[in-house]
Amino acid sequence: MIRFGVIGAGRIGKVHSATIDVNPKAKLAYITDAMPQAASDLAAKYGAKVASVDEIMKAKDVDAVLIGSPTGFHAEQIQAASNAGKSIMCEKPVSMKVSTIEETLKVVDKNKSTLMIGFNRRFDPNFAELEKIIRRGDIGAVEMCTVISRDPSPPPAEYVKGSGGIFADMMIHDFDMARFLVGEEFVVVSALGAALVDKAIGEAGDADTAAVQMQTASSKIAVITNSRRATYGYDQRMEVHGSKGMVHAKNIHNTTVEVLSDKGYRADPIQNFFLERYGAAYANELNAFITAVETGNRDPKPNGFDGLQAQKLAEAATQSWKTGKPVKVA
Amino acid sequence: MIRFGVIGAGRIGKVHSATIDVNPKAKLAYITDAMPQAASDLAAKYGAKVASVDEIMKAKDVDAVLIGSPTGFHAEQIQAASNAGKSIMCEKPVSMKVSTIEETLKVVDKNKSTLMIGFNRRFDPNFAELEKIIRRGDIGAVEMCTVISRDPSPPPAEYVKGSGGIFADMMIHDFDMARFLVGEEFVVVSALGAALVDKAIGEAGDADTAAVQMQTASSKIAVITNSRRATYGYDQRMEVHGSKGMVHAKNIHNTTVEVLSDKGYRADPIQNFFLERYGAAYANELNAFITAVETGNRDPKPNGFDGLQAQKLAEAATQSWKTGKPVKVA
Amino acid sequence: MIRFGVIGAGRIGKVHSATIDVNPKAKLAYITDAMPQAASDLAAKYGAKVASVDEIMKAKDVDAVLIGSPTGFHAEQIQAASNAGKSIMCEKPVSMKVSTIEETLKVVDKNKSTLMIGFNRRFDPNFAELEKIIRRGDIGAVEMCTVISRDPSPPPAEYVKGSGGIFADMMIHDFDMARFLVGEEFVVVSALGAALVDKAIGEAGDADTAAVQMQTASSKIAVITNSRRATYGYDQRMEVHGSKGMVHAKNIHNTTVEVLSDKGYRADPIQNFFLERYGAAYANELNAFITAVETGNRDPKPNGFDGLQAQKLAEAATQSWKTGKPVKVA
Amino acid sequence: MIRFGVIGAGRIGKVHSATIDVNPKAKLAYITDAMPQAASDLAAKYGAKVASVDEIMKAKDVDAVLIGSPTGFHAEQIQAASNAGKSIMCEKPVSMKVSTIEETLKVVDKNKSTLMIGFNRRFDPNFAELEKIIRRGDIGAVEMCTVISRDPSPPPAEYVKGSGGIFADMMIHDFDMARFLVGEEFVVVSALGAALVDKAIGEAGDADTAAVQMQTASSKIAVITNSRRATYGYDQRMEVHGSKGMVHAKNIHNTTVEVLSDKGYRADPIQNFFLERYGAAYANELNAFITAVETGNRDPKPNGFDGLQAQKLAEAATQSWKTGKPVKVA
Repeated sequence: MIRFGVIGAGRIGKVHSATIDVNPKAKLAYITDAMPQAASDLAAKYGAKVASVDEIMKAKDVDAVLIGSPTGFHAEQIQAASNAGKSIMCEKPVSMKVSTIEETLKVVDKNKSTLMIGFNRRFDPNFAELEKIIRRGDIGAVEMCTVISRDPSPPPAEYVKGSGGIFADMMIHDFDMARFLVGEEFVVVSALGAALVDKAIGEAGDADTAAVQMQTASSKIAVITNSRRATYGYDQRMEVHGSKGMVHAKNIHNTTVEVLSDKGYRADPIQNFFLERYGAAYANELNAFITAVETGNRDPKPNGFDGLQAQKLAEAATQSWKTGKPVKVA
Repeated sequence: MIRFGVIGAGRIGKVHSATIDVNPKAKLAYITDAMPQAASDLAAKYGAKVASVDEIMKAKDVDAVLIGSPTGFHAEQIQAASNAGKSIMCEKPVSMKVSTIEETLKVVDKNKSTLMIGFNRRFDPNFAELEKIIRRGDIGAVEMCTVISRDPSPPPAEYVKGSGGIFADMMIHDFDMARFLVGEEFVVVSALGAALVDKAIGEAGDADTAAVQMQTASSKIAVITNSRRATYGYDQRMEVHGSKGMVHAKNIHNTTVEVLSDKGYRADPIQNFFLERYGAAYANELNAFITAVETGNRDPKPNGFDGLQAQKLAEAATQSWKTGKPVKVA
Repeated sequence: MIRFGVIGAGRIGKVHSATIDVNPKAKLAYITDAMPQAASDLAAKYGAKVASVDEIMKAKDVDAVLIGSPTGFHAEQIQAASNAGKSIMCEKPVSMKVSTIEETLKVVDKNKSTLMIGFNRRFDPNFAELEKIIRRGDIGAVEMCTVISRDPSPPPAEYVKGSGGIFADMMIHDFDMARFLVGEEFVVVSALGAALVDKAIGEAGDADTAAVQMQTASSKIAVITNSRRATYGYDQRMEVHGSKGMVHAKNIHNTTVEVLSDKGYRADPIQNFFLERYGAAYANELNAFITAVETGNRDPKPNGFDGLQAQKLAEAATQSWKTGKPVKVA
Repeated sequence: MIRFGVIGAGRIGKVHSATIDVNPKAKLAYITDAMPQAASDLAAKYGAKVASVDEIMKAKDVDAVLIGSPTGFHAEQIQAASNAGKSIMCEKPVSMKVSTIEETLKVVDKNKSTLMIGFNRRFDPNFAELEKIIRRGDIGAVEMCTVISRDPSPPPAEYVKGSGGIFADMMIHDFDMARFLVGEEFVVVSALGAALVDKAIGEAGDADTAAVQMQTASSKIAVITNSRRATYGYDQRMEVHGSKGMVHAKNIHNTTVEVLSDKGYRADPIQNFFLERYGAAYANELNAFITAVETGNRDPKPNGFDGLQAQKLAEAATQSWKTGKPVKVA
């Protein structure tokens, strides 16, 4: 039984708390949040205690800290938890600054802490199967990877301002998936962006529609497209081409029902809420983390390095978009 | 909060106990089983008490009885629970004998008990959507209904002997769905059967492959096919044709992954375990029952009459198969 | 080069004439029709000569006679062509009377004529592939076969009166396909029918909606459903279940285009004109006949016996529908 | 009846000759080729005469010249035909040099000749429907377009050397389709390439795997991916996202057959021969050209300007790939 202290009672903190609550190997011990009411509401719901971040770090009945606070706090909380001897699961991104991530990983490394980064999509049953098939060699040597990610609807322009931009806030998941599926590092990134969905997003200095193409040292190519809007649901597709064939994962419809008439065949829209679409992914992610903690695996994937690399790609894409030039990644 | 006494700690009792356990409006109070160990294991898992059937009927802290015992006990337990003032959810079939069902429903009727029969497929999100679309009139007047139901693999011949036969044990779900989707009663039934999957099933006097065609008084047609084996998973499909079009529900694949090669496109097999395939259906079914109990709805669907009619069709089909002649249903 | 005399310049005669015209191994030599204008129009279009039936039978520059006249003339024209030493391709059915077919086949047999019956669906690339897969053993031993056939819209009630009824006029194709796919003869037939699409069809003594279930001596089961209407196109589907798996052929959409919106996914209707849907089938059928003639194969499939058996099943189904009882087939 | 002189009896000349032969409004009058045997073989097949290019240009019984010669001759032959008063259908590309195209179009413009460029994919029924849906406004304002084009197998490295490279030889079709579907000009092009399929292609200075992203002045984005190999068939897909939804065209399978087993669902590979895949497109293209000639439409689409713009994009992509920098297009 792994006892968790959850930092952050916002949207993602609630997701993780619910996931912990139904996991037979996990116990939700403490919850903290800058807004006391949010913390106490969530604690009451799951029979947990409310505490300060500091108290959680010091608590003897906490084995693991789950960090779902605003991004600006991630790095210092990882370091604190690492220094306190806790295992750590932290939401992406570790930090908006690559140098801060590198500094944080040194602390984790020194303490030999178990740290996992919340790239939940790796744990989606469809995408996990995709990766398994690729690693098994069924499609031969990987040559090209395409990731399509479109949100159902754009966030408020206010949110966008503090989000780090579409490449760091949204496409970072796709950068991680492209690395995960291709199995190599990308060395050059080219980005295009536009505010076609919501002018206010453009006025806030961000894009809501974006495309990136990247290449590895061995010349493998990845193409990512993003939009903050998809009227037909939460569009999450990936396809990987290799020397022997192709493997792809399609979207998940709400139901399997089709209506046939003189207008044609009409199938249901696809799932459009991230909790529904990625419910199984969050559960599997938690199980992977618990297994790592239980078995003393200090380097469960996706690890701090994965967090670092995804952030580097996001920074490179942002820079490429702003300068109109390809950006090399070390 | 509805407090349940669960009768039967076998396969289906376990399903319902787990479903009750995670439902926030339900409490698993008592469990009973002819095998004390089975009852106490299940009770321990969910923090429930072990009791006798009689104790459950008398217990003041039991609002509803969930009957998952062998079919032979259903009728008397429904009557006992009804006489004890409990609400009742009972697995299908109520009884192998139509006359016993009729007698039981009289008791339920006299006591004005809330009784729901466990035709869980009505609550599958796909099939429920199908029915909603039909009732809304999207396909016009219903003309023909096709139900395909194929189990992943046959049960042991031993089980088959006490099962009541393929029409009462397996196709009964499809009889209920045909009635549910077409919205009328069938008045004539014609059946074919064969033991093509497992000779032992044939030697036990049963079929493992079967087809039925039925017609309503207004001439609407339903066609049902069953097999005890489907190598590609648990095949559960329905299609309904109307004057304006057709609506159908397709199978659910394990994942959305497809592998493309010179061999063609390969998609994952479909879900092949009833608990996975109908997990959402069991949860929705329980919610419907709880809502009925809470609101004092004494006639939630599928009700005792639905159980009776499905059994009549199963009996008619069995007789048609054995005699080689169509059988009329009153 | 096979020189054809085409009997009948109606709908099906036109189809065959066009198919002969573009086949490099076939020459359209003569056309005849009871309506001289129809014959001369069609002859002019393809550079053929107009002649009487008798002249065609006697013509030295005719190798094969293609019979597309009204059903009532098929038997005598087959016999005349056979006696004249011609190869014969005849539209289904050979005759509405089983005894007339039997008599006709005796003549063909005595003369050792090459006779092929126009069950064009066997030559559809999808259904031909289906059969190939079954015969190759990919799905193991066949257990059950389902054929779904729905016309886009009903014929005039006038046509229906002289058509022989839905089982002989429409379902006869499906009887042939069930025999073709299952690979055995059916020994018992049970039919249901109704006039749900057009009351006038019912008043004319026919059904427009029908279902049949049949069984072979080895207990294999076939289920056929028909309707004279399908708003979504010309619905032509088949699925065959075996001990190792299932194979099915789906409908053909007009295009591969899908439109995704908040209403869901909308795919194009399916092809709804028999000439478009079965264009390749007619071309392949003609090639198979030409090959038989060229190689001296006197028994190309589907042969006269296939025509006979399909007609027997159609008669049995009609009788079953009218009497409400299963009918045995010798 | 439009009388054609076909220049080039190679692969594409054969395609067009066959298409002309079966078109009731077209007559194949003359064929020419640098290899006399090729010309006389093809002429014999379709009952056409052999002539020199010069004779075709002067022939009074030639209304239209169809140019399927090697690319290096296209420009001068267009000019000659234009000066001779013929209508012209010319295979893509007009020339490998943008300046040569511009010069050629001046001649065509001066003579008011009817010129159509052979971007056959615009006439594929699926892609034509796609464009119709977009123009009708069904998906709202276009925001992003994705074109996937993968050949079944790579050409010999020898061919590659004289081909102009993957961007001009293969992706030029996709540049045209992106312009056609988006409906605006692209102003900046970024390309990646690699020789991952065949080393010899890399040694010949070309890529066999490529990705391009482009943007219009109004910020719309197009992403194109190409590979010279697809083991599963000839992969030709397009999807276009707009403010109200998405429309896409999927691949065409050889048959609609699926085999289901414990290995999953296996569908047929997709069509993998360009003649089969684009047979309808070639026929529709010819009809569009004939209609233009018959109605005196001097500017049928795709016109010379379309040829020019696609070539500009191909040149920009080639330069971007070689320099590693985005290239602006005037």
